[in-house]
Amino acid sequence: MKKIFLFLALCMASVAHAQKTAVDYVNPFIGTSNFGTCNPGAVLPHGMMSVTPFNVMGSNLNKWDKDKRWWSTAYSSDNSVMTGFSHVNLSGVGCPDLSSLLLMPTTGTLSVDYHDYGSTYSNAVATPGYYSNILSRYGIKTEVTATPRTSRARFTFPKGQGNVLMNLGEGLTNESGATVRMVSDTEIEGVKLFGNFCYNVPDAVYPMYFVMRVNKAADSCGYWKKQREMDAEAAWDQHAGRYKLYKKYTKEISGDDIGVYYTYNCAEGDQVEVSIGISFVSIDGARKNLDAEQAGKSFDDIRQTARKAWQDDLSKIEVEGGTDEQKTVFYTGLYHLLLHPNVLQDVDGRYPKMESSSIGKTDSNHYTVFSLWDTYRNTHPLLCLLFPDRQQDMVRSMVDKAKSWGWMPKWELYGRETNTMDGDPASIVIADTWMRGIRDFDINAAYALCMKSATTRGAENFLRPDNDIYRQNGYLPVLSENSFAVSAALEYYMADYALSRLATDLGKADDATMLLKQSEGWKNYFDKETGMIRPRVGDGSFLKNFNPLAGQNFEANPGFHEGCAWNYTFYVPFDIKGLARSMGGDKIFVEKLQSVFDNNLYDPANEPDITYPYLFSYFRGEEWRTQELTQALLAKYFRNAPDGLPGNEDTGAMSAWAIYSMMGFYPDCPGDPSYTLTTPVFDKITIHLDRNFYNLPTLTINKKGTGKRIAGLKVDGKNHKSFRISHDELIDAGTIEFTTK
Amino acid sequence: MKKIFLFLALCMASVAHAQKTAVDYVNPFIGTSNFGTCNPGAVLPHGMMSVTPFNVMGSNLNKWDKDKRWWSTAYSSDNSVMTGFSHVNLSGVGCPDLSSLLLMPTTGTLSVDYHDYGSTYSNAVATPGYYSNILSRYGIKTEVTATPRTSRARFTFPKGQGNVLMNLGEGLTNESGATVRMVSDTEIEGVKLFGNFCYNVPDAVYPMYFVMRVNKAADSCGYWKKQREMDAEAAWDQHAGRYKLYKKYTKEISGDDIGVYYTYNCAEGDQVEVSIGISFVSIDGARKNLDAEQAGKSFDDIRQTARKAWQDDLSKIEVEGGTDEQKTVFYTGLYHLLLHPNVLQDVDGRYPKMESSSIGKTDSNHYTVFSLWDTYRNTHPLLCLLFPDRQQDMVRSMVDKAKSWGWMPKWELYGRETNTMDGDPASIVIADTWMRGIRDFDINAAYALCMKSATTRGAENFLRPDNDIYRQNGYLPVLSENSFAVSAALEYYMADYALSRLATDLGKADDATMLLKQSEGWKNYFDKETGMIRPRVGDGSFLKNFNPLAGQNFEANPGFHEGCAWNYTFYVPFDIKGLARSMGGDKIFVEKLQSVFDNNLYDPANEPDITYPYLFSYFRGEEWRTQELTQALLAKYFRNAPDGLPGNEDTGAMSAWAIYSMMGFYPDCPGDPSYTLTTPVFDKITIHLDRNFYNLPTLTINKKGTGKRIAGLKVDGKNHKSFRISHDELIDAGTIEFTTK
Repeated sequence: MKKIFLFLALCMASVAHAQKTAVDYVNPFIGTSNFGTCNPGAVLPHGMMSVTPFNVMGSNLNKWDKDKRWWSTAYSSDNSVMTGFSHVNLSGVGCPDLSSLLLMPTTGTLSVDYHDYGSTYSNAVATPGYYSNILSRYGIKTEVTATPRTSRARFTFPKGQGNVLMNLGEGLTNESGATVRMVSDTEIEGVKLFGNFCYNVPDAVYPMYFVMRVNKAADSCGYWKKQREMDAEAAWDQHAGRYKLYKKYTKEISGDDIGVYYTYNCAEGDQVEVSIGISFVSIDGARKNLDAEQAGKSFDDIRQTARKAWQDDLSKIEVEGGTDEQKTVFYTGLYHLLLHPNVLQDVDGRYPKMESSSIGKTDSNHYTVFSLWDTYRNTHPLLCLLFPDRQQDMVRSMVDKAKSWGWMPKWELYGRETNTMDGDPASIVIADTWMRGIRDFDINAAYALCMKSATTRGAENFLRPDNDIYRQNGYLPVLSENSFAVSAALEYYMADYALSRLATDLGKADDATMLLKQSEGWKNYFDKETGMIRPRVGDGSFLKNFNPLAGQNFEANPGFHEGCAWNYTFYVPFDIKGLARSMGGDKIFVEKLQSVFDNNLYDPANEPDITYPYLFSYFRGEEWRTQELTQALLAKYFRNAPDGLPGNEDTGAMSAWAIYSMMGFYPDCPGDPSYTLTTPVFDKITIHLDRNFYNLPTLTINKKGTGKRIAGLKVDGKNHKSFRISHDELIDAGTIEFTTK
Repeated sequence: MKKIFLFLALCMASVAHAQKTAVDYVNPFIGTSNFGTCNPGAVLPHGMMSVTPFNVMGSNLNKWDKDKRWWSTAYSSDNSVMTGFSHVNLSGVGCPDLSSLLLMPTTGTLSVDYHDYGSTYSNAVATPGYYSNILSRYGIKTEVTATPRTSRARFTFPKGQGNVLMNLGEGLTNESGATVRMVSDTEIEGVKLFGNFCYNVPDAVYPMYFVMRVNKAADSCGYWKKQREMDAEAAWDQHAGRYKLYKKYTKEISGDDIGVYYTYNCAEGDQVEVSIGISFVSIDGARKNLDAEQAGKSFDDIRQTARKAWQDDLSKIEVEGGTDEQKTVFYTGLYHLLLHPNVLQDVDGRYPKMESSSIGKTDSNHYTVFSLWDTYRNTHPLLCLLFPDRQQDMVRSMVDKAKSWGWMPKWELYGRETNTMDGDPASIVIADTWMRGIRDFDINAAYALCMKSATTRGAENFLRPDNDIYRQNGYLPVLSENSFAVSAALEYYMADYALSRLATDLGKADDATMLLKQSEGWKNYFDKETGMIRPRVGDGSFLKNFNPLAGQNFEANPGFHEGCAWNYTFYVPFDIKGLARSMGGDKIFVEKLQSVFDNNLYDPANEPDITYPYLFSYFRGEEWRTQELTQALLAKYFRNAPDGLPGNEDTGAMSAWAIYSMMGFYPDCPGDPSYTLTTPVFDKITIHLDRNFYNLPTLTINKKGTGKRIAGLKVDGKNHKSFRISHDELIDAGTIEFTTK
């Protein structure tokens, strides 16, 4: 008794006193409600594989159901019934795809209909690289973990028949069709089709190959397939319109709605482990990935390796001070930041070339999942700072894709261009990355490809199909109710500005001049009458019946995409002073911008206006607005709760905003390698810099005092008069000290 | 002018005077109505490949539609709209399967919905190995031909857009699911699932692999796939529930309803040729088959080779006299006889082992499609006579399957047992083939496997699951409304009789005695009250409310399968004299048997009673009934017309009856190597015998006079007193001369 007591006391003490590390602060449930579209599954930084509970299909008990409304995530904290673990999941995106290969353990008589076999769950635990729960209906403990390209599940069964189901028919994706083949009594291999992401390019589809192994042969196994509806012969075919089991057939099976089952006669506590390797190249690639990343490894080995990978990445930034909630928000943000883009190449370096049936090979990392409209603004700049090697590989990947396809990517997904959202965002990432000094990529090719979309005539221009009128008029007229012309043009201006900076840097003065001139086209939209960016129609006049409030909450709004005129009017971050002049002066600008926040017109959940809080700092004496606002917005919209994100995480863009804002600086104008400074939330922030790219090993940010406003600034020990700082100053600062008031 | 006239005159003369050869007499349209379930497509003798117009789906103009009623053929002469050419087709079977890979040429704007793209047709021409028509809607001339394992189509387009569609979703089969991949711009490869034939064994499915090539690259090509129905997101996904084209994606695609299209910008008369190779082993096998059988061959080369193969086979029997109609019936019958079984092995000898995922290899032919309940009675005996080498390979194939699986096949289809119809028919084929002197197969294994089903207890007996009660009682009681007990038991008696003959021959006297005793169990069913074979129920008493007429026209009938008591009562061909005794004597037997014909109770379309017309000849003085009847039945049921077969061709069983009957002899009791003689319809019949098996090169049958009855018989020049002849006597006869009166 005494010994046990002592042991327990020691355990409790050790828990209480253990130093909480970065990884401990991560709460993967943040962003799993309020359309954050994150999930609590197991995944590695930039991991190809992820595995998450899938709870958005097959039960009327759930609040949200796939395709019962627009729905784009595998998991919702508002739901209660799961129908499996889905493999390969997008985090924080706004369109449904992937989240398939639904692996579900059940007990008792075999049912392969997901309408039947779902279960509520309890005791959910999620930490980076690990998720576990108890399936209430079955008394099964589930645990999942991952390597970069594979997953491992461990199911602990009660006594009796235990079943393991691999559903290849359903998932979050609305693309369908799979093939699977039994390789042995413990291994299957196959391929499933995905894509049509956001429904913009119906045949932008791609195959995912997989190999799955169970760690012990089942007592029985087989396939299932939903059978076609039949007419007269349904009287003879008992399976017409129903699921049919294939108990003896072991060659390949294909179809829209197929699966594989294993049944085990379990003793209490029997465990079945399921390993899945994937590849976007081939089944052989999936098998190599599985072999390379799991051979000889126990579930706990994999779990610990995953945890260590996260700890290594997250501890790139150490923070002191601030509340536990703030640390949780910060490290979960960093966790979200590192989920995308993802490695696309197999362990042998092979990956699918962009918009091609060819296979490429790389010695480093080739990335995919580029949601560039979202990420050019802050995500890639933050990666430049924290992981310049990865950012460099990402840019190399983008250029490689462009070389293969002929166009820079826009919203690239597993080698296909989904053509989602507006503009020409890759140019901005290329320029911005170059300007931040990350330059070991084929800049000539990159520049040529960026110039190609900037200058090619519309009829032959994938990225700027409206380029003729844009270049001729300097703006895009709104020609229909559903036009996104203004949003698109604002993106072109931004891209042209960034590209002009790059052109200047590369000594292409003529290009730079031309592009800079193009970027000034925003002035065509400025309507003196309303003081707003206002759509123009085909004859050049401004849109009549213009309502600057139209378009909130994603309603359709002629000229604008996912926003109202207020969300776009200030989106010329490269010419804020010019915009202020157009508006009638700095004071009017500041008042108008302040009114956005006062009148609740600021949309923190979407990208066009997320730079707004920082724009006050362009005006002397108004910087306090930025400083107070960023802290207020952080507190309001970024919380340690499932609904603790303002909306779609947007593959890291929301979190990048929060991370920067919590550290006290923000890149308000991509392509311009500088930051607006704001009040950090932590007392001390230590950023470990990559010595292969930067001169110093660390950048330390100290905050003195608890005031919301900045009273003084020292950079590298010297007073810093401005509320801006260049990227070079920042990385060479060593220390930045904020005094607050 | 003169020259041209002369040339035309010569041509016309040559047509008029050309000697019509066997192949010219074949009319592939016979059996394409009246549920003959034959088709007019191109195929080689026992060819793995066949290609036929497919006209039973997708149009309301057709009389018959797949699955709108029980339907088992790809083609009906009663229909008018075709939706493609189907590949690999069963001929004369009663359940739907195969007839897929629907290849359709169209013109104009691409439509991939088979409800839309069907066409009426005219100018249909069908000769062995060749089919052609004109698609009325499109003005396309279609032509198809075949090699043993491949097909070639030639489409002649009018000017404008020409399309070639390969529909992998539909077909006669109700199994679904396929995968296809573009190998190059002129080649695709894939696999499609088939099976669940007759719905008895739901997972008795099998894959068919294919490689398809077009002879020139198309202007565009791609896939299509029917998309899932969607709910809320259908508002965004324009293809929800519809066919989607995949124009740029070229990797593999899988699903229930997929296809591949090619579009060509055609000048008037442009031809596109499409070649398809198949395999039941692998895609690689399909490609090897295609390469081996088509390399360097033009359409016309293939067509001529196919014609020659048929001419060679059909001219095994030469006939003189008779009408053109009779010759057409005869040679078309011979053509139908040689459509099944089919070679299963690839050109490299590889084939799928029975009920296994293993691959076998053979140096000769390994056959599939064994509809043994149909074919043991006359089809295999006729193959023994005409093609003993093939029959020997078929028996070897059966034994090989049994060794792989553990049971002799019953209704085997591409390596799967469909468990269709009743009894234990393989034993009869083994015994009968052995008794006819075809013996170069593993008789010990074959015998052991036949004895296995005859003696294994029911619980472990696939072929005779009711073996315990059968062996204990000597009969099977009818235990439900849907019982086929009497039909099954009659088959067991037949099998036991045949096997007892084999046992005797092998010196297994005890087995022979036991089996012969078992075969006498039919007497348990003989009901003195009605003079009929009558079901018995569980307590041993005869079924009450017995209606000997019930079960006509395929209605359900307790105890009997596809027939009434009249169709089964005389089906103890091994003990006709015994049956006559039970009935009360020869006279009563003959009267009763005659009443079957007089009262229209004879079903010429199904197997149990097709031997009836010959049974009169067991009774001295009554043989004329056989002789007149066979000629009357031939004239009534076998005609040169689409409805010129009495019903399902049953993979050659109907035609075997006609061929034998037209030649003047019939094997009325399989397992007993002898024949009943009847009046031939031809004046002279020359059968070329295989010298590897038989002593003489030919058997010649001469008929003198035009009477319906036999007045005298000479065998090898000697008077023959009996109306029976043994197989050995027949093959060694040299000449049989019938004198008629």
